[in-house]
This record gives sequence, structure tokens and C-alpha cells, in this order.
Amino acid sequence: MDDKIGHDVGSSVYRQGDFVDLCKGPHVPSTSHLRWFKLSSTSQAYWRADSKRESLTRIYGMCYPDKAGLQERMRQLEEAAKRDHKKIGKEMELYMTDEMIGKGLPVWLPNGETLKGEIEKFAVETEEAYGYLRVTTPVLGKKELFETSGHLPHYAEGMYPPMEMDDGEYYMKAMNCPFHHLVYGNKRRSYRELPMRIAEYGTVYRNELSGTLAGLLRVRMLTMNDAHIYCTLEQVASEVADNIRMVQDYYSAFGFDDYYFRLSLWDPDNVDKYIDQPENWETTQDHLRKILDDLGVKYVEAVGEAAFYGPKIDIQFRTLLGREESMSTIQLDFAAKERFELTYTDETGHENGEVFVIHRAPLSTHERFVAFLTEHWAGNFPTWLSPVQVQIITISEKHKVHAATVANTLYESGVRVKVDDSDNTVGKKIRTHRKMRPAYMVIIGDEETENGTVSIRSRGGEQLNGVPMEEFVAGIYAEITTRDRNLSLIPSE
Amino acid sequence: MDDKIGHDVGSSVYRQGDFVDLCKGPHVPSTSHLRWFKLSSTSQAYWRADSKRESLTRIYGMCYPDKAGLQERMRQLEEAAKRDHKKIGKEMELYMTDEMIGKGLPVWLPNGETLKGEIEKFAVETEEAYGYLRVTTPVLGKKELFETSGHLPHYAEGMYPPMEMDDGEYYMKAMNCPFHHLVYGNKRRSYRELPMRIAEYGTVYRNELSGTLAGLLRVRMLTMNDAHIYCTLEQVASEVADNIRMVQDYYSAFGFDDYYFRLSLWDPDNVDKYIDQPENWETTQDHLRKILDDLGVKYVEAVGEAAFYGPKIDIQFRTLLGREESMSTIQLDFAAKERFELTYTDETGHENGEVFVIHRAPLSTHERFVAFLTEHWAGNFPTWLSPVQVQIITISEKHKVHAATVANTLYESGVRVKVDDSDNTVGKKIRTHRKMRPAYMVIIGDEETENGTVSIRSRGGEQLNGVPMEEFVAGIYAEITTRDRNLSLIPSE
Repeated sequence: MDDKIGHDVGSSVYRQGDFVDLCKGPHVPSTSHLRWFKLSSTSQAYWRADSKRESLTRIYGMCYPDKAGLQERMRQLEEAAKRDHKKIGKEMELYMTDEMIGKGLPVWLPNGETLKGEIEKFAVETEEAYGYLRVTTPVLGKKELFETSGHLPHYAEGMYPPMEMDDGEYYMKAMNCPFHHLVYGNKRRSYRELPMRIAEYGTVYRNELSGTLAGLLRVRMLTMNDAHIYCTLEQVASEVADNIRMVQDYYSAFGFDDYYFRLSLWDPDNVDKYIDQPENWETTQDHLRKILDDLGVKYVEAVGEAAFYGPKIDIQFRTLLGREESMSTIQLDFAAKERFELTYTDETGHENGEVFVIHRAPLSTHERFVAFLTEHWAGNFPTWLSPVQVQIITISEKHKVHAATVANTLYESGVRVKVDDSDNTVGKKIRTHRKMRPAYMVIIGDEETENGTVSIRSRGGEQLNGVPMEEFVAGIYAEITTRDRNLSLIPSE
Repeated sequence: MDDKIGHDVGSSVYRQGDFVDLCKGPHVPSTSHLRWFKLSSTSQAYWRADSKRESLTRIYGMCYPDKAGLQERMRQLEEAAKRDHKKIGKEMELYMTDEMIGKGLPVWLPNGETLKGEIEKFAVETEEAYGYLRVTTPVLGKKELFETSGHLPHYAEGMYPPMEMDDGEYYMKAMNCPFHHLVYGNKRRSYRELPMRIAEYGTVYRNELSGTLAGLLRVRMLTMNDAHIYCTLEQVASEVADNIRMVQDYYSAFGFDDYYFRLSLWDPDNVDKYIDQPENWETTQDHLRKILDDLGVKYVEAVGEAAFYGPKIDIQFRTLLGREESMSTIQLDFAAKERFELTYTDETGHENGEVFVIHRAPLSTHERFVAFLTEHWAGNFPTWLSPVQVQIITISEKHKVHAATVANTLYESGVRVKVDDSDNTVGKKIRTHRKMRPAYMVIIGDEETENGTVSIRSRGGEQLNGVPMEEFVAGIYAEITTRDRNLSLIPSE
């Protein structure tokens, strides 16, 4: 107790019937007020989170003032369980984990690989259009690099332990930034090269406690939609504005509607916490505020929430279940230029050290993004993202040939298609394949075979019969290549 | 000396003038026979390759029976120096290394990223057409995994040292196989799923001595065109045949003509060295030989050169400079099924443990392949691979608009294009950009601007004037998308 309560601090005791609780309080006057409660789970914890101390059992529960409130919450939780990315990830074979590989190191199975491949393709195309350059950097580097970046010793406990090689100590990278800074610094840069945007879907490693790891949200390996922009102060505003537009386009394509921006500023009353470049703080913060105003987006300001190296804009995403998550980030960095001696030759031929760095990750990491996307769509991804886009089902043996023709035509158009021409009943086939959540099921029977048509069935069970094959192929091709959910062949209500 | 010469083994001494050499010999009778010699370099070595022992200086030289022979060799070496991937890699900004990242860990710069991206895209498309499934597996795993695979302890000194985490020891992977085996074993497999082909451009890590590392050929990180095929004995032959065809198609596209196949067999007189499945050895070796005969390809047999776990076919590539390299490999593996308990449910519903594994890497690793490709083409890659496909050069200020139109039309067709509309002279611009080895330079002057044409210039300096813009765009588009070098707009002699 001595180490928990300071000197000259009171403590309180509450009584509930014959139970006496040493507790900060408050307690309700009587448990009769707690009629609408439910115990939900238990877990093990260590006394003061120290694994050398006693193990305790925590009991979780919840309580609502009325029945309706409790029921609504129960419904939400049930919905959450249905949408759980771990459950859906297993059903759809998106990823696997294995004790022999270790905790927090998911393996992307073919369906997950397709999903993350589509996300990455979208990012690469978008970044290409915005003039980003791509690189691939190693997953590890020498101690000296992380000393220069400041990760060591400040962040050492968050990193994997070092590997001693014949030429020094190597660490798995926890961030891609130091590597991108070296790419920038690899040769003398001219003002003509700025803004220089260096992009990589880079995998980073974090030494989390094994007991905390699960699914795609608690992992030790994160594949980040990373990029660093090297630019002048004058260029900061338009680069940030481009990135906000990028976020808006992405979120719209992925169907995320409920989000807002959070502008994190320094605290001018507490300047010791921040890098000592007051003019840069004030100028760029004004820029960022103006961008958000001009774009007319919803945002809040958070004084004192900036990183020590610069202000940032986080994009706060609200999940269907009401959780709020920072999904994307755009951060200014006034510190990198000195740590990595980043310079450029300016218009007058002089070496200029005022290189501003912007860290940005609009699509977060593959792991987090796929987890949220899975929960958001309950696995019923927009067609362009679906691992299986069309599942063809034959009614009987004699429909195999037409089914193969349809499948082949779709495949040639770049559609991901599978055929089930087994002897099972149509009902059984539909039930089997529902788990994989194909964007469409296509049923092929007598009528379709005779007329060269298809019957298509949405995930919700609506069916369109007698669609000419060419029309279906053209329609789904347009839906996929535009990534436009409004082109869905069977609009959901 | 005691540890160098065994008991009852003689030793020999040679005398050259007053120099007495304890040497295995032979020596020439007189140094007058060595008229056409040249000393080429020196290097440091340790006595008996032990870094704790004395350092020695090695002097390298060569000697030819006549002047012509020495001169030819000198010419070859000069050519090799010109084609050196390290020199060209720097000029073309394909990759960089940095002391802070460490030895043998190259960073792919944007131009190298483009090149390896094109290779990877070609591989992914080809593997997709052959029915491969793609996965992404972590770069590290627990000790238990590598014990199961047999890498530990047999190959421990070739691996990066372990990292001790709160849940055990982790190692960077030296091979992708164990991870793919776990993917296969992730659920019960049916005979309907075989052959199952699991592909990944996976990065593996090898603990080479730092002193041996340089460029892209001596590295500690290798990104492998890897895949594992899980199949029945009956399916082995057609899978291997498909892979040989794949190698032939790849080599033809990349312009590698001088290669042959080497079939490595077990040694039936020395069966203790090999896994004890004599029937599998004999049956599959017959299959492999028959495939090579049927395909009518050039091959040799190498008795006793198989791995302990199965026979293999290596593809031996002869570089323009006469070096012979194993570029690709197709290996059967009779051991994996037991180590990883790989099974499938056969037609009769029984669990069958006779799963044959084929390891294959037709495109080697990105690092090796790009190094060879760079040397083979001296950086003048086929158009579809060139980091810069078209470099546009304006003659003067007034040609900027037409240059921008041409550039935009090319960009819209997916061509990688750059414009130099600076004030420098045409001659200077050509000299500057030659280093980047664009497939074509396009010169825009008065005539081109008036007529809406372009003048195109090959790397060899041949020039075609007055080419209609549409014709040029259509031509280069066809050349790129077919990957067909015969469609070159200006054929090289």
C-alpha cells in the first residue's frame, strides 16, 4: 500500500451491505439501483501490471439505467461480435497465425493478399498521380542509424532486441523515416527536385508484450502506407492540402463516411516540451488551419497535442460500433533536417538547411486498415476489393459448359471468378459459398444456358434473372475498374 | 604445419632460381615461359580463412601462352568493368548502400524500384496464369519453426543471430519454405486442391561475413522469386515441365540465350548421403530426364549432385563474359512432408502423407537477377524494363508546348517519360541523359512542332526523323506491353 498512496493523501472506504471496499468511489447507495446489468467477461491481470507480482482476476460488466439501454448495448456488442475481423478473417481465409511463427506476426493468405494487394495498388496509383517516387528499404539497420534518428535510446524498449553481427549491432526498424531520410541525403538535392516525395509500403516492427497480441489490430509487424515529403516552408501548405484530398478520396472509395480532422498544436505556454523553432510552429499551424478552413472540412483543434517535432493533423474515424480511432496522420517534422543534415541547393546556388519533412500515412497500415475495413463491411467488401468477385454455381451437370464460358469471359476481363459445378444442390452451394462473401453469385441453369444469359444474386439475396452475359461482364468490369460503389449491379437498399 | 598435412602424406618442394617454395606444384621450369602475364590486384586474406589468425596478402595475376590470348582477356576484363552492375547501378541510380544501414543491405532507389517492379509484375502475371496463389509471410519466426525445418542447428551459422523476446527466441528467416509449409498445413487439404502452388517474392536473410559484401551480388538480404508446389507423385512431371517452359519464356523475354539445364541426381552407390526413399528417387529422376528429352532442351546429368532431400534441375546461365552461373532452380523435396506433416485427403477419403514439394525460383532473387540483367544489357535494358523509357529533349524555349503534349500523351499511355526543356544545348542534354540510358530520346524542334511529329533517337545514336506522334505512341506502347524486343522502333544492328 505504501507505494500506492502518497504522503498526506487521504483514502476512502465504502460499505455495501457487509462488503467493505477500500475504494476511490463513488458507490451507489444501494445495489437495487443496478437492476439492468450484465457481467460480460473475466481476465487475468498482474497486481500493478508487474508480471512478477500476484495474478488477479478482473470481472467486467456493464450497467444501464434502463432495460432499453442495456438491450441496445447488447445488440451493439452482438453486432460487433458478428463483424469481428478475427472471426471474419478466419471464415474468409484472409490471414492466419501460427504458434511456430510466433505472436503478432500474421501471414496473409491468398484472399487477404488479394485484398491488401488491391489497397496497395490503389495507393500506388494515387501516389504515382501525385508525383511520389517509390523505394524499398531493408527491414533492419545498424545501431548508428537509430541513434542518429533518436529511436535509441528513447524508444529502445519498443524495438526488437539487437542482433550482434561481425560489423556491429543491427535492429529491426520500428519506423521507415530514417531510411527515407538517407535516400533523400544520398546525393546533393536541388530546389528543382522539391517537393520530393518518397513512398514505400514499408514493414516496421514493434516489440509489444506477447500477452497483448491478437488478430490484425494487436501485432508486432505493421506494413505502413508510408511516405515522406521533403519540401520548403512555402510548399508545406499545398502538400498537406493534397494529402487531405487524398484522404477524402480514399475514405469515399472505401465507404468511410463518419470522420473528422484533428489539428494538434503546440502549447505556447509550455514551449520547453517542443522543438525550439517558434516561427516555424506559428507559421505552419496557421497554414494548416487555413487549409482545413478552405477545404471546409469538419475539424477540432487540440492545443498541446502536437509531437515535440511539429504540429499534425490526425483523421479521426468513428467505427460503426461507435469507437473512435485515429486512422490517418499527416505530421510536420522540424527535427529531421538537423538530425540527418538534410539540405538542398537553392535558386541562388547556396546550400539551404530548411528542409521541411512531412510524414503521412493516409491508409494507416495494412493490418489496421484491413481490420477496420473488414468490420466496417462485415466482410461484404465493395466489389473491387472482394477476394472472390463472382462465384458461379451450376444447377446441374448439363450447365457446366455455359458456366465455363461465363467464367472464362469474366477471367479475361480481369474479374476474380470461381466456379462450383459439383453435384451439390444449389441451396447447399449458396450456403457454402456465402462464407466467402463473393460480391455476386451467378446461377447457371437451363434458361441461362439456352439464352446465353446469367442470373445474378447479391449478398442480400436479391436476384436479377436473364441478364445478357455481355451486359453483366461490362457492368462488373465498370464497377471494378472505377472502384465506384454506386455502379453496383444490384444496389443494396 | 601439423594441422595441414596428414600422417603418411608426402610434401613437395619446388625451386625457382633462389626461391624455394613448399608447394603442391607444379612450377614451370623457367619463368621465361611466363612472358605474357599481368598482375591484376591484391587482397587481404586470413591464414586458413580464420579471422583470428595472421593476415596475408594475396597477389592475383594471370598468364597466357601468347600475346593475343592475354590481350583478349584484357579486353574481356575491360568490357566487364564497363558492364559492372555496381558502376552502372550508381550511374542509373538503381540502388544505394549506406554505412549507417549496414553492409549487404541495399536500398532500391526509384529507378531500381521500377526495374524490379517490372520483373515482379511479369512474374506475378505469369504465375497467375499458371494458377499460383500468393501469400505474404513475416520475415522472422520462432526458433521452434526453424528447428522443425531443420535450419537449426544445421544452418545456424548462416542465419542472423536470434532475438530474445518475452515469448521465446526469434530468427530472421533464411528461407521462405517453412512458412509456406505452414500455409499449406493451415487446414485439411483435399486432392481437389492439388497441385497447390504457393508463391511469394519473399525476402530472406543470410549472415555473410561483412568483409565479403558488395553491390547486389554479395548481400545479406535476398528477395526471392519463390514458390512451393504441393502435389502428388503423378503431378510432379507436369509441374516441372511447366516450370521449364516458364524459365524458357522468361529467359527469352529478358534476352538470355546462352544457357543449359543441369539435372542433379543422387548417387545410387552412396545412398547414405540421401533421404531413404529409393523408389521416389528413381521414379522422379526418370520423370525429370523424360521431360528434358521431350522438351528437346540442352542438358547434362550430374550424378551425386542432388540435395539430400531430392533431385533437382538447375539452369546454368553463361554471362557475356564467359562466367557460368546457376540462375534458376527447380528442386524436388521428399523430406518436407514428414517434417511438417503435410497430408491431403485423397479420392477415397483417406489421409495421404505422400505430398511432394517442389521448390522453384526461375527468376532467382531480385538482387542477383538485376545484377546479371544490368551486366547483360550494360544498363541498356529492353524498353519495357527501362526506368526511363523516353527522354524528351527540346531544342529551344519555343518547343516546350509541343514537348509537353508529347510527354502527356506518352504518360497517358503508361510510358515512363521525362522532359528536359532547360536552356542547355541539345548536345549537352543528350550527353547528360545518356547516363540514364533511356530506351529512346525524342528531340523536339521546329519541324516536329509544326508537323506534330517527333524525331526519335536510339541508344546507338541512330535517328528517325519526322515520325507522326500517334505512330510513335502506338509503336512504343506495343513494344512495352508485349515485352517483345523485336518490336523495337529502331532495331539495333
